[in-house]
Amino acid sequence: MSQKLLYLSQDDVKNVGLTMAEIIEATEKGFVEMGNGNVEMPPKPGIHPGEGGDNFIHAMPAYIPAMNSAGVKWVSGYPGNQKKGLPYIMGLLILNDTETGVPLSVMDCSWITAMRTAAASAVSAKYLARKESSTIGILACGVQGHTNLEAMNVLFPLKKVMAFDPSKENRETLAAYASGELGLEVSIVEDPKQAVTGCDIVVTSGPILKKPHETIKAGWVDEGAFVSCVDFDSFFSRDALNQADKWTTDNLPQYKHYKDGMGYFQQCPDVYAELGELVTGKKAGRENDMERNFAANLGLAMEDMAVAPLIYKQAVEKKIGTWLPL
Amino acid sequence: MSQKLLYLSQDDVKNVGLTMAEIIEATEKGFVEMGNGNVEMPPKPGIHPGEGGDNFIHAMPAYIPAMNSAGVKWVSGYPGNQKKGLPYIMGLLILNDTETGVPLSVMDCSWITAMRTAAASAVSAKYLARKESSTIGILACGVQGHTNLEAMNVLFPLKKVMAFDPSKENRETLAAYASGELGLEVSIVEDPKQAVTGCDIVVTSGPILKKPHETIKAGWVDEGAFVSCVDFDSFFSRDALNQADKWTTDNLPQYKHYKDGMGYFQQCPDVYAELGELVTGKKAGRENDMERNFAANLGLAMEDMAVAPLIYKQAVEKKIGTWLPL
Repeated sequence: MSQKLLYLSQDDVKNVGLTMAEIIEATEKGFVEMGNGNVEMPPKPGIHPGEGGDNFIHAMPAYIPAMNSAGVKWVSGYPGNQKKGLPYIMGLLILNDTETGVPLSVMDCSWITAMRTAAASAVSAKYLARKESSTIGILACGVQGHTNLEAMNVLFPLKKVMAFDPSKENRETLAAYASGELGLEVSIVEDPKQAVTGCDIVVTSGPILKKPHETIKAGWVDEGAFVSCVDFDSFFSRDALNQADKWTTDNLPQYKHYKDGMGYFQQCPDVYAELGELVTGKKAGRENDMERNFAANLGLAMEDMAVAPLIYKQAVEKKIGTWLPL
Repeated sequence: MSQKLLYLSQDDVKNVGLTMAEIIEATEKGFVEMGNGNVEMPPKPGIHPGEGGDNFIHAMPAYIPAMNSAGVKWVSGYPGNQKKGLPYIMGLLILNDTETGVPLSVMDCSWITAMRTAAASAVSAKYLARKESSTIGILACGVQGHTNLEAMNVLFPLKKVMAFDPSKENRETLAAYASGELGLEVSIVEDPKQAVTGCDIVVTSGPILKKPHETIKAGWVDEGAFVSCVDFDSFFSRDALNQADKWTTDNLPQYKHYKDGMGYFQQCPDVYAELGELVTGKKAGRENDMERNFAANLGLAMEDMAVAPLIYKQAVEKKIGTWLPL
């Protein structure tokens, strides 16, 4: 075989230096294709090694003809890993030549997963938040708190961050990042309400729970605000959820699977639109300055496959990674 | 990340030197686990890049607790590849640590796929063929003709091979392999009937077709013979199929999907048993010397995951492959 495969480690993927702006643009393009019915994305099957059934490894295949992208993400989530000094989420992504099926690249998927998840939040916000949004509340300041802040800062004229997290280390790390790297004003808040009320954009990015802890009550989310529920509805009471004017998701079949098959989203309003319908104009995004709009995006193989070809192309150009014989 | 990933190219995988006997043993162990309900193997989703819909790339995940094996095979089939000088089947297999989800190895899957498919034929034959089977007919002498012959030769006292293939090159390559490497007597036959009638074991390993070409007629398969239909029922007329005493497969849900969902196996008898039921004794294998028994195995992710840990372990011991940072 004369074919060669490009391997990109976690550091290699980061060192390619793809910007959040590029990732948001690619993710939005992917949603346009999806909204137009031009993405093949079968259900994601998984295995569940170990005891207790909380571990998973999922296969996430997708094909986006217009982006000449086909491949699979094979991603694991092991809740017990953090005690072992390992990440919760790990995995690899395989990118294939669409013309021949030949594997072009194997790359670490954790950076891409963190970035494209935040990019999808930002694409939702582009259609559902007020354009002049300047104050953002971040509830739970882990990886997704950071990347969601970074992504929203690309699209909105952010000035102020309200950072809430039970972990002192997490909230201070986020505060340092927001003020240092992004040049934003930051308030670390002890009361979660202060990271919701008064905010134009709210991101909830804690652990995903089947039974929400219902920290956020009715009346906390301002009229005109946008909420990205990265952790599903875990932060919200039923009454707070029912104040949503537009409750949206990235993929309705997958949302129904989580809701009806797995027991998440039990207290949530009916889905108004998929993100693909918003970006293609098939359904209206924000229609006035008073709407409270929500996105509960689930994370799609399409998003990974929208970003992976950019990583591959730039890695080749920049001579990053290890070439291997097939 | 201090974790390291072992990459094994196609040559590396071959150079590990796993024997067909080891592969048959591992495959049979996997079928024991499957027969006892101890394998997690979700349906395999796929994408279909390119025009015409004949190309596929399938994700095949499986978890075998007793073998401490979890992973996925991501395998493509592009019918047009051969004209481009590329294999029809290509792909990679990812093996994970079952305790943490950490990827342990990425390896080429084409050798494993070719070998384990033949090993499954041999495991079927172990339970369904006569122990003293000595004459084998091979109809279509490509990759699967070769590996099925190799696998049957491990378990049976083969003496004579009847080789049929429209391609002169294919049948002569098989003949040279059978007489040279395996030391068997070989007859190249022009009439396909000569590779069926008079044979204790018959392997049909041509292209897989929805509409069988029906070359093999009723009465050709001897009483007491075993047939491995590697190419499904493509070679058989309805009347020939209906002479089967035991029509078996490796996995009933997948068989039903191919039959009812995709239109294969339309003329076939009802399935008597899954291979897992035969190896665990839940259903009887051959019960007398007169039965005509058939196996139409489909190829399972379980088989790949039964073999992959052996490749990985021996590669580590023999210092084969390329270690990469995660």
